[in-house]
This record gives sequence, C-alpha cells and structure tokens, in this order.
Amino acid sequence: MPKIPHRLYLTEDQMPRQWYNLRADMPEQPDPMLNPATGKPVTEEDLYPIFCKELAHQEMDATTRYIDIPEGILAEYMIYRPSPLIRAYNLEKALDTPAKIYYKYEGNNTSGSHKLNSAIAQAYYAKQQGIHHLTTETGAGQWGTALAEACAYFGLQLDVFQVKCSYEQKPFRKAIMEVFDANVIPSPSTTTEAGRKILAENPNTTGSLGCAISEAVEKAVTSESCRYVLGSVLNQVLLHQSIIGLEAKKAMEVLDEYPDIIIGCAGGGSNLGGLIAPFMQDKLTGKADPRIVAVEPASCPSLTRGRYAYDFCDTGKVTPMARMYTLGAGFIPSANHAGGLRYHGMSPILSKLYHDGYMEATSVKQTGVFEAAVYFAKKETILPAPESAHAIRAAMDEAIRCRESGEAKTILFGLTGTGYFDMTAYSAYRAGSMSDYVPTDEELAQAFSTLPKIPGVQE
Amino acid sequence: MPKIPHRLYLTEDQMPRQWYNLRADMPEQPDPMLNPATGKPVTEEDLYPIFCKELAHQEMDATTRYIDIPEGILAEYMIYRPSPLIRAYNLEKALDTPAKIYYKYEGNNTSGSHKLNSAIAQAYYAKQQGIHHLTTETGAGQWGTALAEACAYFGLQLDVFQVKCSYEQKPFRKAIMEVFDANVIPSPSTTTEAGRKILAENPNTTGSLGCAISEAVEKAVTSESCRYVLGSVLNQVLLHQSIIGLEAKKAMEVLDEYPDIIIGCAGGGSNLGGLIAPFMQDKLTGKADPRIVAVEPASCPSLTRGRYAYDFCDTGKVTPMARMYTLGAGFIPSANHAGGLRYHGMSPILSKLYHDGYMEATSVKQTGVFEAAVYFAKKETILPAPESAHAIRAAMDEAIRCRESGEAKTILFGLTGTGYFDMTAYSAYRAGSMSDYVPTDEELAQAFSTLPKIPGVQE
Repeated sequence: MPKIPHRLYLTEDQMPRQWYNLRADMPEQPDPMLNPATGKPVTEEDLYPIFCKELAHQEMDATTRYIDIPEGILAEYMIYRPSPLIRAYNLEKALDTPAKIYYKYEGNNTSGSHKLNSAIAQAYYAKQQGIHHLTTETGAGQWGTALAEACAYFGLQLDVFQVKCSYEQKPFRKAIMEVFDANVIPSPSTTTEAGRKILAENPNTTGSLGCAISEAVEKAVTSESCRYVLGSVLNQVLLHQSIIGLEAKKAMEVLDEYPDIIIGCAGGGSNLGGLIAPFMQDKLTGKADPRIVAVEPASCPSLTRGRYAYDFCDTGKVTPMARMYTLGAGFIPSANHAGGLRYHGMSPILSKLYHDGYMEATSVKQTGVFEAAVYFAKKETILPAPESAHAIRAAMDEAIRCRESGEAKTILFGLTGTGYFDMTAYSAYRAGSMSDYVPTDEELAQAFSTLPKIPGVQE
Repeated sequence: MPKIPHRLYLTEDQMPRQWYNLRADMPEQPDPMLNPATGKPVTEEDLYPIFCKELAHQEMDATTRYIDIPEGILAEYMIYRPSPLIRAYNLEKALDTPAKIYYKYEGNNTSGSHKLNSAIAQAYYAKQQGIHHLTTETGAGQWGTALAEACAYFGLQLDVFQVKCSYEQKPFRKAIMEVFDANVIPSPSTTTEAGRKILAENPNTTGSLGCAISEAVEKAVTSESCRYVLGSVLNQVLLHQSIIGLEAKKAMEVLDEYPDIIIGCAGGGSNLGGLIAPFMQDKLTGKADPRIVAVEPASCPSLTRGRYAYDFCDTGKVTPMARMYTLGAGFIPSANHAGGLRYHGMSPILSKLYHDGYMEATSVKQTGVFEAAVYFAKKETILPAPESAHAIRAAMDEAIRCRESGEAKTILFGLTGTGYFDMTAYSAYRAGSMSDYVPTDEELAQAFSTLPKIPGVQE
C-alpha cells in the first residue's frame, strides 16, 4: 500500500470550527451592490425583506476574517462531513502522468453535492429568526435537494422554483425534493408576476436560473414570514462553502502536501469560491503562489467571454445589481447543455479576483466534459455530476501536460457531486447526440444589450 | 460535540487484510450442494464450467478461517473503503430512545451499495484466470451496476440479465450500467433457452431473479472463455462481504463498543452474512452472545414462511441444488414490491445458522418500510435504498422498544445503500399507491409444490 492513503478523512477534532471570509484579505473589495430603484449602494437593512438578518449581515461583512460556525450547524455538518480528500492513484496511473492528483469529494450526501454546506447554514439562521417558510430556485437540482433536506431537518416549509428544462429532463430530482416535503414548481410559472411576464414575452422558454430567482425572490418579499435563499453567487454562500477549502487545506497539511494548481468548476462560484478560499488567502497574503483555475462551460462562458459590469442577478430585474462578469441577465443558455453551470453571472468576489489577476479561467465543451466524466468513473468508481466533470476535464488536461513536460505537479480539484440524476445526459453522450453548442459573438452582443444603464456608473 | 464521533472511518492501517470464512467456526456445516443430474454432492471441479477456479475453490472451502485479500483487490477496495460506521445521534434524538444506534453505511460508491465488495473480487479472479467475459443477473440493479464498474476497471466484457420489472421501473439503472459498458438485457429474454421456455409458459411474466440467473448461467456455460458471477446467496459472496462486518467490529472496538443487537436486511443474504460474520463468530465460539436479526419483506418471506429444503437456485433449474430456506424456485414475487429482496431462497450458510437457532428473522410490510426510510432520510440526511430500509424499520422498532422499556441497548444495523434509483417507488409511497401485498398460504403451497423431488433425500 502507498504511504499517502487513498482517502484522508479529518477527525472531528481536526475539523474547522470557523468559516473563512475571503474579503477580509482582499486588497481591493468588490464594488458595492446597487439598489435598482435608487442606483445607490444597498445597506444591510435594504436586504432584510429578502434575507434573514444574520445572512444579510454576512452578505455585507467584508472585514470579519473568521466567523464561528454555530453548534446547531456543526451538529448537522457532522452527519456528512468531513468529506474525504482523495488521491487519484488510479487516474494518475491510467494517464501515465508524474502529476499527483487530489480531489476533494463533496458527493457523499443525499443532496449529491457541496450545496448542503450552505443550505444547512441558511436554514439554520432562518429558523433562529423565527422564519417558517423559505423560497429558492434550482437549476440542475442539487441546490433544491440540499435545501429540501435542510428544511426537513429544521422543520421549515419550502417552495422551490425549478428551471423548466431541468424539471422536465430530471423528473426524479422533483421526486427526491418531494420526499423531503418541498413544494416544487417549474419556472417560469404563472404563480408570480415575474413568471407571467417572462411567459408572455417568450411562451416557449425552457427557463433559466435568472428567471427562477426572480420568481423565488418575488414570492419571498411579498410575505412577512418568508425569506429567499440562494445557493450560489452570494458572499454569504462563499463564506459557508469555505468549509470545503479549509478541510482540503488541513488534509493536505496532514499529508505534508500543497497544491501547485487548484481547479474548480464555476457556475455561480459557490464551489470554486469555497474550495480556493484558504489557498487564495495564501496568495493574497504572499504566503504561497498556487495557480487557481476556474472552469466554465463553453456554452455559458461568463468569465472567459463575459463583461465585467453591473448587472441584475435575475432575469426579472427584482434583485440588487452586482458588478460581476456577466453575459447579461437576458442570456438564456442552450437547453442542449446538460448540466448546471447555466448562470449568466459569477460571484462578485470571484469576478473581482479574476479581474485583478489572482486567478485564471478556461472554458470546455460539453462532449469533452462527458468524455472525461466517463473516463474518470471507470478509474475512480465515482460517476461525477456533469458540473464536476468540467473540473475533471481541466485537471486531466493539466496532468496530461505534466506527462508531456515531465513535471510532477500537485493538482487539487473539486469533485462537487455525483451524476446519479443526470443519466439522461450520460445516455445522450453515449448515443452521440450531445451538442457542443457555443454562443456566437452576435448572440452574446444581443445578451450584453440587456445590461442595465445606471447614470454616472454604467452608461 | 459528543465524545463518540458521528462517523468513524478506520485508517488504511486499521483496515482488514483478510476475509473471514464463517464456515470454519460453524459446529455443523450446511448440507452439500447437489448435482441435479446425479443427485450427488457437487465437487469443486463440477463448478469450473460455471465459476472461475479460485471462486469455485472459495465456494467449497469450509475450513480455511481467514483468506488473504489479494493486493489487486485491496487497491480497488481502497478507492471507496473503509465505509463509515455512523452513530445515528439525530435518529436517536428524534425517537427519544436511550438506545445507541450505529449503522455501517455501504452507499458511498457509485454502485450505491455493498455489492461492489464482491463484484471487485469476482472480476479480479476472472481476470487472473484469463476470462474475458462475464454474465450475471440483477434485480434492483445494484449488483449489475457494481459488476459493471468492476468489469470496466479490470477490462472485462459483461452481459447483465436484468429482471424485467426492474428494467422497466428503473430505466436509469440500465443507463448507468451502460456508462460502464455493460450489455443489459431484460429477463426473461429470447436470447437463451431458459428465457424462451419461461416466456412460452408465461408470456406476461415480470421476471424474477431465479429466472435471470438461469439465463446468465446458460450463457456462461455455453462459452469457454465466459463465466457466471452472482451477487448474493453463494458462500464466496458471504466471504467477500465479511469485509463489512470486520470493519464494523474493528470500528466498534476503537469506540470501545459492542452491539447487543445486529440487524440486516436479507434477500439472498450477501449483506447480512457479511455484516454479522465476525459477531456470529463470537457467538459460535462463546465469546459473546448478541442477538442477530434478519429482516425480510413480508411479500417474499423465505426465512419466516419458507421451507428448509433442497431447491434450485434458479427458475430454469440449471444450477446445482442447495439446501436453504426457500419459497420454491417457482415463486415469483409481486411486481408491486418495489425494492430488491425478491429472491425465493436464502444463503445456505445463513439458512443453516437460522435453522440451528443462532439468529432470528422477522418480516416487514412495504408501507412501514418506506415510512421508516423517509423518517430516517429527514434525520440522517441519507435517502436509503428500499432494501436497506427494511433494516432501518427493524432498528427503529427495537429503539422504540428501548424507549418503552428504558433499556440503553446498543444496536448496529447495515445501511446497505442509497435509494437514488428508486424514486419511482418513493413517489408511489408518497402518493399512497404502494401495496402491502403478502402472499397467501395457498400461493405459498403452490410455490412449494415446485420443490424438487430427490430420491433418498427429499421425496
């Protein structure tokens, strides 16, 4: 048996007891969110109708470096955490690479992904404030499942607006959310103003995350005891997800390892931001200089082809505006694209770090992603989520470059979840009927035209 | 945080390097398998056309107590093992029980169950012997998925005969087996003599494991470079699955714990036999006296309502005959029964131990099983396989009895896998359309009439 184990699980004593707030170490802060009504920066109080107070505070807090994880959250984390750090010996051997490949595997829970880390935190704080009812959206379905689990645990009512093409492609996602008593609604729906407006403009739309967000936010703000929660993009979500990176870094310390390259898939940025957090801290504070790589789908390329601009977080334009890499809130990704990672924008924190040169981004096409997913599954016994497979593709490509150059780099990537609810997509890949659609420059120009005009800020 | 961690993972150093062969400690051996052509006990050589040689040897070896796990198998085990021993703090709290509930969770791999433990072993030995092609059957689909994974890993061709009602109820099971390049055939099929015969007698049959076994065995024995493998019932499978119990017992030793009651679901006996193995050893050798409980579905009650008799392992009567608790090879379980555990017989080792009073058996109805499954999922964040939920039901019932009696018993049960491919059944449960069918005495009498007549042995 090799000296470094295949899987390393931290003990409960070794597990992080605090989240890490990346903003506390950023030399420059992301630009403030703007109130769409006034064009002025939003305050914590402005967010109270949308988010419960503690989460609104976390959203705005750019200075507290470490935040204690409440015992009530830790007790639930302990049921499925720590997640393992896995050395991909079999994959390394199959690729004949001198690189050392590690992955942090977040799929060992019924939500099937890392999303449960923030779902538990958000449901906990809502419960603490006496909120009885939450709304959210879900794209690929992992977030909705995670939140349904967390709400069942804490005894909260939940409405999930599920992007229509996902609702139709993945009927069992709805079924599993319903096991946890969630009320699942395909979006756009006729239950909200935002949904009715989008349907009137485009009756055949397959939906988008931006649209589902509009519906969920509208439903929350029109009821006193109801709040909205979001599974990605937000600062608070990156904070909660820092548990991934903190565990990964600690596990690598136990093994006396440090990554040369850290790779994560990027949709709204929840996994990437969490995985890289403590490594980015090292980079920002001059302690180390790893390469940090975001991998996005070529069909929804917000970092690699988007604009760094103020934009709405939703299609219905009911949310505050954030400055981020965006394709325009009007961008609707191709329904042929199988997985998640379909969001038009990107976490403002990650957008700022990318803009300032602290990380790289690359995009990959769908067929190559599934090719990597199947290759990985056969070697490492885990069938990955299509989202996670974007990171696998990039990690395999780095390992192959190491084979060619002879360099023994240490690669760490995030395996965010499992693909058990994505079998339709896997079957399409096997049948050769998968699309490698990439938006044209004209399509992107059209979507950019939906960016808001803000007098004095963005004309 | 509590002193006993929520999850205990053994380190690689602590992991078992040998399987344990329960037969070496049994005061009386199970009756020998009989050759159906001669009525005489089968020899190891008789099995060579069906199983590869090393597996035929393991099948017949009743004396070697510990068998080294080859390095080639350990290397693959290490990718997904050790599986965690989990303390169900949340479930205990919800049930308000003084009992301590532990479960050994085998669902953290893409096959979704413990089946991978034997699949890897069987594929490894086939590969070692130069076999290129394997055949098998699958009911609920976990075994087929596990073997597809193992065959992809070792580069073997695989045909899976999937019980027709499962093939139809679980289309994504087929899809995931195909990702691992397996050839999946609904059974009964027209590709074998056995399948054609069964279809001629009963064109509308929904299939059974016994029938799928006939087809897979026929396909294997009619080709030189092909062998048959089976995921349960056999002695060799219980041997490989002893890894579950050995890990569980070691983990409990680390925690300074020992179970008063050990509970496992029982279909063919692969999980139960593996989980209980080292605890049964303690019982057989007088070192301890835990209660050992097999839980079977009321719709397929081989231990609780079957006969201890010689029977075929398959419907087509092509396999050797084994003495076991059986409902008769002609028994076809109700298609309304959602999960696995649909096999007419039971492992001869477990049948003998049950017959000789070393373990108990109980049966549970389907609605109560799914009720327990959903309750468990909401508390422990894992959506269990319906098969596993049989053990959950019985463990919860024991814990509730402890609440009533005030006894702080230590309960260990096997959580064999996850229910992600069983969402149709979960939706039926939620819709209230689940059947609690139990076979009538007349139906069982009819099935018993299919038991073979063996001159001088069983008239």
